[in-house]
Amino acid sequence: MKAIIKHSPEPGGLLLTQVPTPIPGDSQVLVKIKKTAICGTDIHIYNWDAWAQKTIKTPQIMGHEFVGEVVEIGRQVTNVKPGQLVSGEGHIVCGKCRHCITGHPHLCPQTVGIGVNMDGVFAEYAVIPSENIWVCDEAISQEILSILDPLGNATHTALSFNVLGEDVLITGAGPIGLMSIPIIKRAGARNIVVTDINPTRLEMAKTLGATKVVDVRTEKLTDIVKSLNSMKEGFDIGLEMSGSPYAFADMVAAMANGGKIAILGILPSNTQVDWNKVIFSSLTLKGIYGRQMYDTWYRMSALLQSGLDIEIAKIITHRFSYQDYQEAFELMSKGECGKVILEW
Amino acid sequence: MKAIIKHSPEPGGLLLTQVPTPIPGDSQVLVKIKKTAICGTDIHIYNWDAWAQKTIKTPQIMGHEFVGEVVEIGRQVTNVKPGQLVSGEGHIVCGKCRHCITGHPHLCPQTVGIGVNMDGVFAEYAVIPSENIWVCDEAISQEILSILDPLGNATHTALSFNVLGEDVLITGAGPIGLMSIPIIKRAGARNIVVTDINPTRLEMAKTLGATKVVDVRTEKLTDIVKSLNSMKEGFDIGLEMSGSPYAFADMVAAMANGGKIAILGILPSNTQVDWNKVIFSSLTLKGIYGRQMYDTWYRMSALLQSGLDIEIAKIITHRFSYQDYQEAFELMSKGECGKVILEW
Amino acid sequence: MKAIIKHSPEPGGLLLTQVPTPIPGDSQVLVKIKKTAICGTDIHIYNWDAWAQKTIKTPQIMGHEFVGEVVEIGRQVTNVKPGQLVSGEGHIVCGKCRHCITGHPHLCPQTVGIGVNMDGVFAEYAVIPSENIWVCDEAISQEILSILDPLGNATHTALSFNVLGEDVLITGAGPIGLMSIPIIKRAGARNIVVTDINPTRLEMAKTLGATKVVDVRTEKLTDIVKSLNSMKEGFDIGLEMSGSPYAFADMVAAMANGGKIAILGILPSNTQVDWNKVIFSSLTLKGIYGRQMYDTWYRMSALLQSGLDIEIAKIITHRFSYQDYQEAFELMSKGECGKVILEW
Amino acid sequence: MKAIIKHSPEPGGLLLTQVPTPIPGDSQVLVKIKKTAICGTDIHIYNWDAWAQKTIKTPQIMGHEFVGEVVEIGRQVTNVKPGQLVSGEGHIVCGKCRHCITGHPHLCPQTVGIGVNMDGVFAEYAVIPSENIWVCDEAISQEILSILDPLGNATHTALSFNVLGEDVLITGAGPIGLMSIPIIKRAGARNIVVTDINPTRLEMAKTLGATKVVDVRTEKLTDIVKSLNSMKEGFDIGLEMSGSPYAFADMVAAMANGGKIAILGILPSNTQVDWNKVIFSSLTLKGIYGRQMYDTWYRMSALLQSGLDIEIAKIITHRFSYQDYQEAFELMSKGECGKVILEW
Repeated sequence: MKAIIKHSPEPGGLLLTQVPTPIPGDSQVLVKIKKTAICGTDIHIYNWDAWAQKTIKTPQIMGHEFVGEVVEIGRQVTNVKPGQLVSGEGHIVCGKCRHCITGHPHLCPQTVGIGVNMDGVFAEYAVIPSENIWVCDEAISQEILSILDPLGNATHTALSFNVLGEDVLITGAGPIGLMSIPIIKRAGARNIVVTDINPTRLEMAKTLGATKVVDVRTEKLTDIVKSLNSMKEGFDIGLEMSGSPYAFADMVAAMANGGKIAILGILPSNTQVDWNKVIFSSLTLKGIYGRQMYDTWYRMSALLQSGLDIEIAKIITHRFSYQDYQEAFELMSKGECGKVILEW
Repeated sequence: MKAIIKHSPEPGGLLLTQVPTPIPGDSQVLVKIKKTAICGTDIHIYNWDAWAQKTIKTPQIMGHEFVGEVVEIGRQVTNVKPGQLVSGEGHIVCGKCRHCITGHPHLCPQTVGIGVNMDGVFAEYAVIPSENIWVCDEAISQEILSILDPLGNATHTALSFNVLGEDVLITGAGPIGLMSIPIIKRAGARNIVVTDINPTRLEMAKTLGATKVVDVRTEKLTDIVKSLNSMKEGFDIGLEMSGSPYAFADMVAAMANGGKIAILGILPSNTQVDWNKVIFSSLTLKGIYGRQMYDTWYRMSALLQSGLDIEIAKIITHRFSYQDYQEAFELMSKGECGKVILEW
Repeated sequence: MKAIIKHSPEPGGLLLTQVPTPIPGDSQVLVKIKKTAICGTDIHIYNWDAWAQKTIKTPQIMGHEFVGEVVEIGRQVTNVKPGQLVSGEGHIVCGKCRHCITGHPHLCPQTVGIGVNMDGVFAEYAVIPSENIWVCDEAISQEILSILDPLGNATHTALSFNVLGEDVLITGAGPIGLMSIPIIKRAGARNIVVTDINPTRLEMAKTLGATKVVDVRTEKLTDIVKSLNSMKEGFDIGLEMSGSPYAFADMVAAMANGGKIAILGILPSNTQVDWNKVIFSSLTLKGIYGRQMYDTWYRMSALLQSGLDIEIAKIITHRFSYQDYQEAFELMSKGECGKVILEW
Repeated sequence: MKAIIKHSPEPGGLLLTQVPTPIPGDSQVLVKIKKTAICGTDIHIYNWDAWAQKTIKTPQIMGHEFVGEVVEIGRQVTNVKPGQLVSGEGHIVCGKCRHCITGHPHLCPQTVGIGVNMDGVFAEYAVIPSENIWVCDEAISQEILSILDPLGNATHTALSFNVLGEDVLITGAGPIGLMSIPIIKRAGARNIVVTDINPTRLEMAKTLGATKVVDVRTEKLTDIVKSLNSMKEGFDIGLEMSGSPYAFADMVAAMANGGKIAILGILPSNTQVDWNKVIFSSLTLKGIYGRQMYDTWYRMSALLQSGLDIEIAKIITHRFSYQDYQEAFELMSKGECGKVILEW
């Protein structure tokens, strides 16, 4: 089969090549890939940054965001049948630790990442453990089904705290930040303020339902906040999606007493936080990783069935044939886009 | 001042008459009433049923749903000023018990009801304890501000459990049942099914966002449920708003394992429940009374500021001058209406 | 191998006989049974009551409470090794439904019970699905490890609500009611009142840490309550462990506003409840079934490691060789005992 | 009356002097002080550090930890009577903001501190707002009743997360760290590990129920952790009570995935945190301030009534007449003590 592999340990270093089609084990499923999407993680691997250098072993098939059709199942598999349209969770867990057996496998310390620690899904076929398979509602478009993994990150982060009637600040309008806007709107948030430094993305944020957007290069969050006359004390909930220490500092400063912040963006190790504010204002900071298995998947699907798909579709801006992967990776590297789909 | 009083202990027995204008105490507020609304409780008093006979002492000023303007404040009052537009919580609590001092005064066992255990607000002026005053956002229409009390019942019930992505059954499409439809929709519910025996109200339920409505005189809930293809096991959440044992039995039977039911409707004492279902399906039944002080008020106001007011406005169907109170009470008695407003 | 089977569909009808030793499948484990315990469910089957008649297919191996040693594992099994001391969860779930995949398999609607819907563990060997295996801390006595299933029922019920600093009423001092006393004491309960009609069991309740015990044949709960001077308004938490409508009615009447009741006892279908109290006092009633997989198992084990085992040991009153099963079943039928162990 | 005042803006600068006895307002209470205790905050004021210099206006009566008898009440006061033994919450709140009216006044942004922003209780008499009064159970010793304020800090922190069956790390064995040991033990914690650099306090920690204590000057937390054979992945809960960046770094490193940390210690502004650990291990960090009004007070009292008082009594190491205040302050400054009581 054809597959896009990271073949050499250097920036770029991708290759579309022929590899053996994998064979599913007893508890695995063979999926004919239909659409995949490029994640920020894939760009780290593409650019061969410090994290990629210590994490990735070449050669390896790229990718973990996908939708496809099941073509073969192992003999122990009972939760899915050939012919079904599926996506899948990219984190494979141990199944034995406390977190795995008490219903919190997203906290498993032995997690292995598809397309990160093992071969991925940018290929004509992929083998996936049956318990990682999510059977899709075919009423939802395949493009959206190919980005359930990042939509799950957004959903996990956005639903970390009750936002009904609350004022929410989102720092970072990348694809996941953007996705979280209609999610928290559908969860009943009152004001949704989004900060970024990219005018295109801030424009998308507005379209997706942000009450106010702030270009922090030219505007001050504190000024914008004053114009929200229903908000008295600061933001109740923060979603950190930027990985920027400056954005995070702005967020902490802008929170109301008792405010809660979910952190998905990967903050640099030297990021400072105002501990006096955290302690005397009784803030909660919560790190977010992956998706709750599979509560996030269930609720995200229910939201899509309720109309969220229309909003999420706006975040998909480009489609390529898998053969044009080089162009797609270049586009994503530059960031002048929302989600980018590869068609197989 | 003019006031509508229950003057004689018998069905009907209302009188529009002149009474002394009350004088606010140190911690009270005098409100010039602008609009009031008639509650189901008022109809119990009007009809002089068994509950009214043992609860109400005549003569007494009727009513507890209102909006008005503060015209005078006691010397200890600091949370509101003359000239402000206000509504108010109808339950006066002791302020000393465990529930009152730990942030759950809606559970106070010493609650006294305005217009029930003491003079009410169907009058040109009313005295209200300052801590029961809710200062209103004047951007919301006064008609809606006059029904915050029942909207608060709906909000309290609807937000008792997390409905995001869940399938919800509402039994009873009276005013409070109707109000809860757009609330749970804004809280992210997936399917909302509403049952009743009144076609007019079921029609309103549809307009307000119900996925399906069921006239249980001619349709079976179980049949309708089959048509919801995304719902596999039953309803996750139930809101009992009818007070009907039959509706409640239907609801219990239709719940998924682990389902949660909030009960606002007042079930007759001989109402049976299928304990096997409750226990083996791990159901939760939660009695709801009043409004959380003042979390319900805060979130309800935030929802109104986010657009809920447009939907709630549809539930107000009739307006009368206070002088035509007799006609208004007759209409409410017959039930051929949504909320009915009296203007002062 | 030797096994105790229900061989004929009638009261009694047990037989100790020779049956084929089962062979574990790929995802199963073969356990050499060391100790088993007799559950109330086993007595229903023994007495061949209405529930047993419609549920049990004879002949079938009895029992589901056990501890034993793994002697063989299927080729897919990775969470346990031969030689390990294990107990196991008696509910086998589907693994595919929403509840199973979102971390709440105890709510699975397809649950199958070991020793109820299929062969059980009152035998020299038993085959158990590997995911139902609980690897034991060998520092805990094997007798206690043989009753983790009912201890799990007690733990699940007792931890359904936060009891720290709360006043708790337990109706029913059978083995599970008794077990829940030291659990809620260790969870920080203040007053623990236990009702029953069996003086021996009430005496055990006192030994296990009950603040007060009430023999409802001769004492009134309301009188005893008056003697608890720190309790002002009623019980905060109720654990219904009796299955008695009278006990349940007493409990509902004795709850404080906002009180929460976990119901494990199986109430008869005609049990009445005071709906006015439920609704106007904002009570929560929660049906409890089985054990949370495997959070209940984890916390129960942690409590045993913290000293709970010393208290639970007091509830085990009799031991028999499996060959004397007839005597053991007779004793359990009469109820003049705590937990009864069969040794293999 | 006699009072201990901070009279001059410099280190030391205390004076025992004669001041006018205050007169209670309509909603206030006059308390005859019986016992007071010295808080770390009082030592900051005594030492006149940077925080004190910008916060305290001299001359001002010191102190906020007290027990006393009510001798006079304002005419609006109904929750307490002359003759009752009382302690009180040291944070006076606005009563109007969202947090105050929704049951979370400990989050009020307008909080004023008794003995910090206004005259305190190190005097023969003190005036306290009636809503800040906590009527005491006279079965508890007056010494313990004089330290309910810091015990409330410990309770608030210790109960921030469910510790039942969990492994808990406490960094810092000062008085509040020590108090939290028996609280979390009574809440069902499994392993309790305490770190400090003061051998006397670590010895007290052991006496109060710590599973292991670690003198981080000579021992490594990571080594001690290995000896806890029931703990597999790290601590589930952390209570930061030291204000030390090193202790906090050790704690973050030692947490299990999904771990939760409550931070009461005041971390210096340049304290670093390992964001990779916070995010990829899904940690929660929660700042703690004050006491939940008055849920913390209620639960703390219930725990004291259940026997916690015996353990807390061990933390009170010294008593002085108020006339020997100078000696008491000197002792507290050196830290060679637990809680220090002044008798009036």
